[in-house]
Amino acid sequence: MSPTITAFATSPDRGNGHARDFRVRWALEEIGQPYDVRLVSFAEMKQPAHRALQPFGQIPTWEEPGLELFDSSAIILHIADTHPGLLPADPAAKARATCWIFAAISTIEPLIVQREVSILGEGKQPWHEARLPLVEGRIRDRLAEFSAWFGDREWLEGDFSAADLILISVLRRPSGAHFLGEFPNLAAYIARGESRPAYQRAFAAQRKVYDDAQAAA
Amino acid sequence: MSPTITAFATSPDRGNGHARDFRVRWALEEIGQPYDVRLVSFAEMKQPAHRALQPFGQIPTWEEPGLELFDSSAIILHIADTHPGLLPADPAAKARATCWIFAAISTIEPLIVQREVSILGEGKQPWHEARLPLVEGRIRDRLAEFSAWFGDREWLEGDFSAADLILISVLRRPSGAHFLGEFPNLAAYIARGESRPAYQRAFAAQRKVYDDAQAAA
Repeated sequence: MSPTITAFATSPDRGNGHARDFRVRWALEEIGQPYDVRLVSFAEMKQPAHRALQPFGQIPTWEEPGLELFDSSAIILHIADTHPGLLPADPAAKARATCWIFAAISTIEPLIVQREVSILGEGKQPWHEARLPLVEGRIRDRLAEFSAWFGDREWLEGDFSAADLILISVLRRPSGAHFLGEFPNLAAYIARGESRPAYQRAFAAQRKVYDDAQAAA
Repeated sequence: MSPTITAFATSPDRGNGHARDFRVRWALEEIGQPYDVRLVSFAEMKQPAHRALQPFGQIPTWEEPGLELFDSSAIILHIADTHPGLLPADPAAKARATCWIFAAISTIEPLIVQREVSILGEGKQPWHEARLPLVEGRIRDRLAEFSAWFGDREWLEGDFSAADLILISVLRRPSGAHFLGEFPNLAAYIARGESRPAYQRAFAAQRKVYDDAQAAA
């Protein structure tokens, strides 16, 4: 029986693979696991039925017999723990790759998200223009640290792993990609991720949901 | 051979258990694993030797024979994966608890950190007073969602786990604790965590580093 994930009925990313269901789709495509998608509206996400699965009223969620989960990284780690191919088999290498999952979502992504919060949430506030350079400087400094460490590596830890999947998804957010002209090694890293057939299948699937919703509107 | 972690030589938390080495200390105390601590100055943290362990120049790091890690959550997950007692043995329960580790650090903590960024990093900016209520409203809304889900639970998933350790550490940050008068169930949850003997041993150990540094200054 295929697992079921939830995704936006009308994604604010306009089908560009930035909503967090995309990361789970990509992971499932990497291991060739079919899945079902239940689309939820913004109103449905805030209802008790969805909050029973996702206390914060967000997507994606995960349902398989005997297990319900939320949080895209937790779902991906669960997939990696139950299928070969998303994290190294060697325990030390697996721990190092897992370390980068956490770094991606807690050390890098929150800074990138703050630029989106500024632009989308505070863009009309009187302080926006003066404050944005502070927010951007924090992203630039963090990306410079990562770029220096990453150097000319191909992937974070050995072969492609769930850590690359998540970190590439973080870096290619528009407010991360905005800075990538300054970091050619990171731009090339993202391009390597985007060229993977599994990425492209996941991207097409997520885009189709958006296109279908637009056609029906 | 005991693992070695790094911690601030002079912690900006003044020994109040908010620096991230504290979370690793607490986890190690829960399982009774002795550990060594290497103190690093702010200058040392930014040097190549430390950045080889921690690309972002932060603490804590983890060193054991054959494995170097960074990121407190990744270190704690590694400890939990190699010792009983920090995550449920049942795979589904373990996945649910792990889900809360991710929710703690990616859904809740970044909002709390933004209040610290505002006060400590932008407190003298002309927009600070007008903007702070926005930042605080985001924290309050998120805590309300968590409080509603948590209800009268004792711990997140069955017995106390690494997920509680991390989420309690997140909530007791001063910019989280600031709101806990509004959420008695969360205040009680934090108090339950703080009353654990392992928490208290870890707190005393982290405080001693700060007190010793003050005495020597």
